[in-house]
Amino acid sequence: MNYPIIVDVTLREGIADPEGATIERALPALGFTGVAHVRTGKTFRFGVEADSETDALGIAHSLAERLLSNPVIERAVARLEA
Amino acid sequence: MNYPIIVDVTLREGIADPEGATIERALPALGFTGVAHVRTGKTFRFGVEADSETDALGIAHSLAERLLSNPVIERAVARLEA
Repeated sequence: MNYPIIVDVTLREGIADPEGATIERALPALGFTGVAHVRTGKTFRFGVEADSETDALGIAHSLAERLLSNPVIERAVARLEA
Repeated sequence: MNYPIIVDVTLREGIADPEGATIERALPALGFTGVAHVRTGKTFRFGVEADSETDALGIAHSLAERLLSNPVIERAVARLEA
């Protein structure tokens, strides 16, 4: 069966996020106040052909760790797409 | 109150996704078979200071459309972080 997967990659706590910081600095000039702690991340959506949900998530998790993220600075979470 | 928001930015259907295509081509060489239709996206997490959930989502939606995405090629969805 084909399982739709989402991998969510976020920077670990304490790792600098220059893109988020730049967005945050730009907000007041655009009229947005009260928005803070902007953190950016990446998502990867794909289909995995597997025999079970568990197998599909296993493949997705391994893929996320090995190819889609840098485990030193990023955290990757794989889940089934709702 | 401060509401934690996630904005999910994805490419619209039919828009080319070179990053996803490159990942997909690299998969067989790394031993991943049965993974297809890789699509990439971006996420932005931030806190919004507002009087209600509806207000917070309104601010987040406007921010997502004006600053965090290109509505011509991307779709932005703002939601409260669970």
